[in-house]
Amino acid sequence: MSKRASQVLLYDTTLRDGLGMEGLALSLEEKLALVAKLDELGVHYIEGGYPGSNPKDAEFFQRARALRLRHARLVAFGATRRAGGDVATDAGLAAVLQADTPVVTLVGKSSAAQVRDVLETSEEENLAMIADSVRFFVERGREVVFDAEHFFDGHADDAAYALATLRAAAGAGATTVTLCDTNGGSLPDAIVHGVEAACAAVPCAVGIHTHNDADLAVANTLLAVQAGASQVQACLNGWGERCGNANIVSVIANLQLKLGIAVVSAEQLARLTEVAHFASELANLAPNPQQPYVGQSAFAHKAGLHVSAISKAAGSYTHVDPLAVGNTERVLVSEYSGRRNIEAKLREQGSGIELTDEQTRWVLDRVKAQEARGYVYESAEASFELLVRRSLPGYIAPFDLEDFLVVERRRHQPAADAAPGSVAAESEMQAEAMAKVRVGELLTQTAADGNGPVSALDAAVRRALGASFPDLERVHLRDYKVRIINPGGGADAAVRVLIESFDGVHLWRTVGASTDVVEASWLALQDAYEYWATHYRAR
Amino acid sequence: MSKRASQVLLYDTTLRDGLGMEGLALSLEEKLALVAKLDELGVHYIEGGYPGSNPKDAEFFQRARALRLRHARLVAFGATRRAGGDVATDAGLAAVLQADTPVVTLVGKSSAAQVRDVLETSEEENLAMIADSVRFFVERGREVVFDAEHFFDGHADDAAYALATLRAAAGAGATTVTLCDTNGGSLPDAIVHGVEAACAAVPCAVGIHTHNDADLAVANTLLAVQAGASQVQACLNGWGERCGNANIVSVIANLQLKLGIAVVSAEQLARLTEVAHFASELANLAPNPQQPYVGQSAFAHKAGLHVSAISKAAGSYTHVDPLAVGNTERVLVSEYSGRRNIEAKLREQGSGIELTDEQTRWVLDRVKAQEARGYVYESAEASFELLVRRSLPGYIAPFDLEDFLVVERRRHQPAADAAPGSVAAESEMQAEAMAKVRVGELLTQTAADGNGPVSALDAAVRRALGASFPDLERVHLRDYKVRIINPGGGADAAVRVLIESFDGVHLWRTVGASTDVVEASWLALQDAYEYWATHYRAR
Repeated sequence: MSKRASQVLLYDTTLRDGLGMEGLALSLEEKLALVAKLDELGVHYIEGGYPGSNPKDAEFFQRARALRLRHARLVAFGATRRAGGDVATDAGLAAVLQADTPVVTLVGKSSAAQVRDVLETSEEENLAMIADSVRFFVERGREVVFDAEHFFDGHADDAAYALATLRAAAGAGATTVTLCDTNGGSLPDAIVHGVEAACAAVPCAVGIHTHNDADLAVANTLLAVQAGASQVQACLNGWGERCGNANIVSVIANLQLKLGIAVVSAEQLARLTEVAHFASELANLAPNPQQPYVGQSAFAHKAGLHVSAISKAAGSYTHVDPLAVGNTERVLVSEYSGRRNIEAKLREQGSGIELTDEQTRWVLDRVKAQEARGYVYESAEASFELLVRRSLPGYIAPFDLEDFLVVERRRHQPAADAAPGSVAAESEMQAEAMAKVRVGELLTQTAADGNGPVSALDAAVRRALGASFPDLERVHLRDYKVRIINPGGGADAAVRVLIESFDGVHLWRTVGASTDVVEASWLALQDAYEYWATHYRAR
Repeated sequence: MSKRASQVLLYDTTLRDGLGMEGLALSLEEKLALVAKLDELGVHYIEGGYPGSNPKDAEFFQRARALRLRHARLVAFGATRRAGGDVATDAGLAAVLQADTPVVTLVGKSSAAQVRDVLETSEEENLAMIADSVRFFVERGREVVFDAEHFFDGHADDAAYALATLRAAAGAGATTVTLCDTNGGSLPDAIVHGVEAACAAVPCAVGIHTHNDADLAVANTLLAVQAGASQVQACLNGWGERCGNANIVSVIANLQLKLGIAVVSAEQLARLTEVAHFASELANLAPNPQQPYVGQSAFAHKAGLHVSAISKAAGSYTHVDPLAVGNTERVLVSEYSGRRNIEAKLREQGSGIELTDEQTRWVLDRVKAQEARGYVYESAEASFELLVRRSLPGYIAPFDLEDFLVVERRRHQPAADAAPGSVAAESEMQAEAMAKVRVGELLTQTAADGNGPVSALDAAVRRALGASFPDLERVHLRDYKVRIINPGGGADAAVRVLIESFDGVHLWRTVGASTDVVEASWLALQDAYEYWATHYRAR
């Protein structure tokens, strides 16, 4: 019935289309870290950016050359040449060429109406723009993907022209023409119809690129594969402009576990949950607990009816084995041994610490207790290592914060610019902190102002530690993230603080959690300084 | 091609299946408020709960009798009678009957394997359980819906038996048999196949109930309707156990705008965004900015390519008109007049305040400025009214908090139970506050302890206000919600606090925002007390 491709290739566009998401921004370092993760996951293509449009992306490709990718091929994204222009002098194409990637993706218009109204050029010129631009990169040894923008809307309006744009690309040597549901509003039947028509029209591979504006992105992607598409473009966790792109996490799991198409190895599939959470933490987006396959609630059971059925017939309310995607069935979680996780994590971090069975058990208990208080260690490897070190006999902390005192005051100031009625008076907050810190035998007591209670406390502690660790001044807070963990908890809601620190050479991350935001912040700061003092301070 | 029902009925199961979501809980009052909203939205059936399983749901149905619903029919949910039991003496059925709703939904098993392994009874007895239970309610004048649990898995394993369960229900008088993809793992082709078989097997209406475990719930729902289903069961914002149920918000928009099936009026459809946000705020879940149709980012454009195309051809990157669902295209937002919103809101709240054009403009500017600082007024009607009152000439606040001082300290205590290594010492936080409050000519200065900085400040202010407003003791904080607004903002991240207050008779909500959580909390508390003093205090 369905014309299924023998092989389906995964094309991740998180670093280009995914970054169109409102509020999402990644640093160059974070992008490189994500490329490494995606490569480990077994993705076949990783689109790194749009160097012709964004100068930072050009820098990314320069740095990315040093990466040794095992599975993935790096892709630079660009648009077809300008109307009436020449490929040899097109600045956009030159920037893509300079990115020096094995694969190039070029976006061009497939909708006749868009060619007229937005490009403001002729249908023929648009076909020439596609063919010229594809050929430019094919002649320079690149594998070329043609992204057919607005393909499905164009196909519905003027099928012959939409297919002609694909033929122009294929005829010029594109290895894949990818059909984009750019506005994300196409229904499944339009997707199937379009993919079938494209497969019949061109000899090269056909890809699919969907958006989630109608809540259909993953379904449309699967149906396209069943209709003959052999490349799927998607983003981690469904990031992307507006409602996001198809979620590559759901796509991978569905292709592999539902359609039986092996896109990654079983070992890679089992890392799906880890990769999804890594990306969320990196971007400081709260992981969606409901996220299919990898969400914290994805295999959790609350209804008594279900829990009782599970105890009689495991899998009664589970559509796949959660372990296949690295997730766990929550009613069973206490039955799983977590000890292997601890050992694997220590090996992964290369800390060189070996634990006895008893120590591992203690660490595991402590991790569970801390997680119940709101800690997460997935993206706070420095705090995890300190937790382990504190379990070892003879560990002595490099310093102790014995007491602190934070004072916050609000001084009334009559409103000056209040108009037209009596508006609430403006005011100014002031924060000061006192800290008592012990380093060995030395007890130091200091005070400092701050921009708020946390920055005041931080300033006071740093001042106190400065006497013993003068090179602490090199350490800077790179990022400070606060998240409410249990929003339903009222005034007792717990807060999690994640801190990223940098000393000019090394970067490390720590975590703190408490019902009090000042204490949570302090706990993360303490780990940051303790980790630095353990590893990086001048001796 | 597709066998489309002439009419599709919306069946909301938020208050039953939706509440299976981890971390989601609604009070009785909140449930009643949600029923009223769903009725306004034009939903045809509202499932209120499972009275046989949950005593609180029985109370809900008692209270719900007083609601005057204009569109919706209320539904009580239950299971078929016990194996080997008798409908006349079945406690579960009795509880459903007592709920006294016009519609009853009964869940029963459609999978032969589940009948054997989970129910541990015979296939024949299960058919009798279904028929007896349906007949019990039909004879008592109820409209009966049969929820065929595990229908699609059962249909794949043993189609004849799965269809026999539907026939048993239809034969006993069920008006609808609803096919449940209980584990949420079915692919579109299995859904279409199952719906078509069901439509052929029974003369009554066929419904669809999907879950999102494979990220396909909305697509599966639409495909089921295209295959002949005429009732759709879904939940607000995709709430529900594990990965959630089909999102009724997306389903409504897709049915109406994509399939052309008028399930609600155009006016009701235009309230979709408001209803979705209302539900999120009620449940203190951060609205998902990416949510299809109603998310804050759903029609927002970031990519320069898109913004430039939009300026040439509006709708270039918009699959539907955002106004149709009450949302807005964000690049155009400043071109819309917001003054009508202000006027409509004041009318809606029945505050009786009339503003001049100049005052309305001032209020609008102030709302925009406040929203930029992190305020939202959608669910904080009391703060909105105060903002308006403060724009009126001659408004005098009932009190002023002139100064406050909060002191938070952490006292070092040597760890007692640290084992086996040297664990970070436990400690205790203490918070105290001083407040200076003016009521008319009276200046009161007080101090109080608290469970944290906010509760200490609240205690001090209440103590100070108590001299002038002795009946303030009747006012209680019902809920306190904190949310980080711009998580990427580092230590400058803004915090929004929403407070719900109750004086035994009235309930009102206020909001405060600041980069400092203590100040944000105070601003919300100030509004809460000021609103109370304006409207409800004894004079």
